[in-house]
Amino acid sequence: MKNINTAPISGMQELLPEAQAIFNELKSKIEGVYRGHGYLNIETPVIERDEVLLAKAGGDTEKQIYRVFKTAETANEADQALRFDHTVPLARYVVEHESDLVFPFKVSQVGRNFRGERAQKGRFREFYQCDVDVVGRGSLPLYYDADVIATLIDTLRQFKLGTLVRARVSNRKILNGLLTELGLDEKAGAIFSIIDHAEKASIEETKYAMKEEGLDDDLQVKMLDFMNLHGDRSVVVAKLREMGIENKVFRDGVDELDVVLRWLEGEGADDSVEVIADMQIVRGLDYYTGTVFEFVLPDYKKVGSVCGGGRYENLAGYFTDQLLPGVGGSIGLTRLFYVLNEQKLLHEAIGRPLEYAVVPISDAEIAYAVEIASELRSQGHTVTVVVLPTNKKLGDKLNYAGKLASKGIVIGESEVASQSYTVKELR
Amino acid sequence: MKNINTAPISGMQELLPEAQAIFNELKSKIEGVYRGHGYLNIETPVIERDEVLLAKAGGDTEKQIYRVFKTAETANEADQALRFDHTVPLARYVVEHESDLVFPFKVSQVGRNFRGERAQKGRFREFYQCDVDVVGRGSLPLYYDADVIATLIDTLRQFKLGTLVRARVSNRKILNGLLTELGLDEKAGAIFSIIDHAEKASIEETKYAMKEEGLDDDLQVKMLDFMNLHGDRSVVVAKLREMGIENKVFRDGVDELDVVLRWLEGEGADDSVEVIADMQIVRGLDYYTGTVFEFVLPDYKKVGSVCGGGRYENLAGYFTDQLLPGVGGSIGLTRLFYVLNEQKLLHEAIGRPLEYAVVPISDAEIAYAVEIASELRSQGHTVTVVVLPTNKKLGDKLNYAGKLASKGIVIGESEVASQSYTVKELR
Repeated sequence: MKNINTAPISGMQELLPEAQAIFNELKSKIEGVYRGHGYLNIETPVIERDEVLLAKAGGDTEKQIYRVFKTAETANEADQALRFDHTVPLARYVVEHESDLVFPFKVSQVGRNFRGERAQKGRFREFYQCDVDVVGRGSLPLYYDADVIATLIDTLRQFKLGTLVRARVSNRKILNGLLTELGLDEKAGAIFSIIDHAEKASIEETKYAMKEEGLDDDLQVKMLDFMNLHGDRSVVVAKLREMGIENKVFRDGVDELDVVLRWLEGEGADDSVEVIADMQIVRGLDYYTGTVFEFVLPDYKKVGSVCGGGRYENLAGYFTDQLLPGVGGSIGLTRLFYVLNEQKLLHEAIGRPLEYAVVPISDAEIAYAVEIASELRSQGHTVTVVVLPTNKKLGDKLNYAGKLASKGIVIGESEVASQSYTVKELR
Repeated sequence: MKNINTAPISGMQELLPEAQAIFNELKSKIEGVYRGHGYLNIETPVIERDEVLLAKAGGDTEKQIYRVFKTAETANEADQALRFDHTVPLARYVVEHESDLVFPFKVSQVGRNFRGERAQKGRFREFYQCDVDVVGRGSLPLYYDADVIATLIDTLRQFKLGTLVRARVSNRKILNGLLTELGLDEKAGAIFSIIDHAEKASIEETKYAMKEEGLDDDLQVKMLDFMNLHGDRSVVVAKLREMGIENKVFRDGVDELDVVLRWLEGEGADDSVEVIADMQIVRGLDYYTGTVFEFVLPDYKKVGSVCGGGRYENLAGYFTDQLLPGVGGSIGLTRLFYVLNEQKLLHEAIGRPLEYAVVPISDAEIAYAVEIASELRSQGHTVTVVVLPTNKKLGDKLNYAGKLASKGIVIGESEVASQSYTVKELR
């Protein structure tokens, strides 16, 4: 025996069975809601050609991509790497299978992605992303922006977190139009980044960052007032319209936001979810072009963003000349599970993992024990049959059973003879 | 736009949504039955340290392992690779978390594994394995050999293939004992391999291969007679005992086979599954030490082995001095799905992927359409709301709806006014 490190690689989630069961429960809720809302599930390979993945990656992402060595058998093939998100593989999939798909294509993906980030508490190198996307061919109605957000709201509601979920929605066109109006087009990238970081910064820091970009006091105040706009659709939309900005992009953005939020009215009906307009939401990623959104738990600031997404004008420009506009959102389940668990927000009181443990006293009773287990299973229960090494006593067996199941059934000679049994609560 | 190949990498499964739904259905049946039989699910990372994976790999497997390049951020860490099966990660997991687990540890793993095999029709480089294992500490009762096989029988039964599934069971000790008795101990490896290949070879080829190994006519006949022993437990066990072999290993093997098959009586009760003793089953892998089994579809020889497994004396000898005996079995789902599909054995008549499509005639009816969809979903149905670009007519919408859902609900002004709707079968 060599001395081998048996810990999982740093940054890879590995759970004990009890925690894994809760994780699986959340995943299965996500899959169920996505399916219920009409999103068709697909799976793409974890390994892609470099040229596919690098078409979009850049900056930090490119530095974090796990490349794959070719094996002796695959030596002549193209260079390969592990996917770092679901968006690039989806673009490839839609282009590859375009003639077999029905558009608008409502699609879900639930699986592991990989980024070789620097090891850090709560950051994962292998992580589950759970994505919904709607991809149109040529054009895609605005309705689907609301469809995606409603699906995610419904998903979060199923988690039964016992705390308010807030969906914060904006539209990139509003800020883009405002920047044009203020003559700040050229500084758009920097300002997007300042707004993105403003939540974690003080007002002074944000003003200073804007000043650094050359915005005078008046512009700084205008921007801060704008960023602070948030609340009910009707109030925020009215304030935006009162700004008297004639820029068409700005006005289109306000109209789109108004319509999307109107469609979402009713989604917050039961007090567990609130949908607001919020001008602080910009989503750094440069491919968003319209609706953008982010979900948070206002009573648990540390949890950060629970999910997010938005509208993109063209999914697969790297792979095809066909215009494929889309809208999508994603739940980063591995990170979310980690933070919800840390905040003790996972109330799934699953208790012991199984319902029944059937305990034959000796080998002679195994056959009847198996029969009982099989019958209980056919009624939909989870059941294990407990057989321990021969030096173990009945007490050991009941102890083992009690760790795994909530109900126990002991089978001895008399139970076999009478073909009957008693169910007892364990412990 | 560069000219980028959008096909998935050769040897990687990528399905259209309809096929993916059937695949997911099979996977979910497997997970359900495994859970029902009391196997706790775990997931280990796809990426492991080289030293962990290479502890066991060797020969062909080692040539097929996908190594992973470290990223800029992980440059100082140990070399890493993609797992090629679930057994090595399970061994590492059990050793790492030993103090938190309850033994015997009944565990399931369902996930993707990776082998860079030469590209070939029906061989996959990325494939789902669905494993059940029971791991004991120090010792593990024979009962679990039957527990694993019964779980897999139950799983295959849920597939409702409409053709007989045959579970062929043997015990390595029987052949090992026989070889000792015949003075062939030193040729054990070669003879195991000859028996493994005999199914696809003619009797002449098999005899010739044995002759090459130095077996004379008498020994060849003895071996062929032995390999041909198969059928009901009572018949095969009686014939094995009639051979009058006193060797203890042989006799232990026969006793174990007898007991395991007795426990499995009743598992074949409904005609869809048959359990037999079969001396041709040896399972090439050298870590099996007792019970070995393989499931086949006798009416579909081309499908080959549907699943297989066996008993191993020590799971984690590479990682710990603690003796961890186990028994396990595995369904290679990606390959199985491929061959069952080829043989048209997947009868899951899922038809169109969704139940309902709600079609608002104009944007004014979207809100009521969403309300109906939400109501149907709360009753457990899958529902999509159909909104197409404005240049599309109602006919286009119904055509789209008919491709996705089996029932359609059209919402116009009058439905909104009366707050009522009609459900129609689509096409």
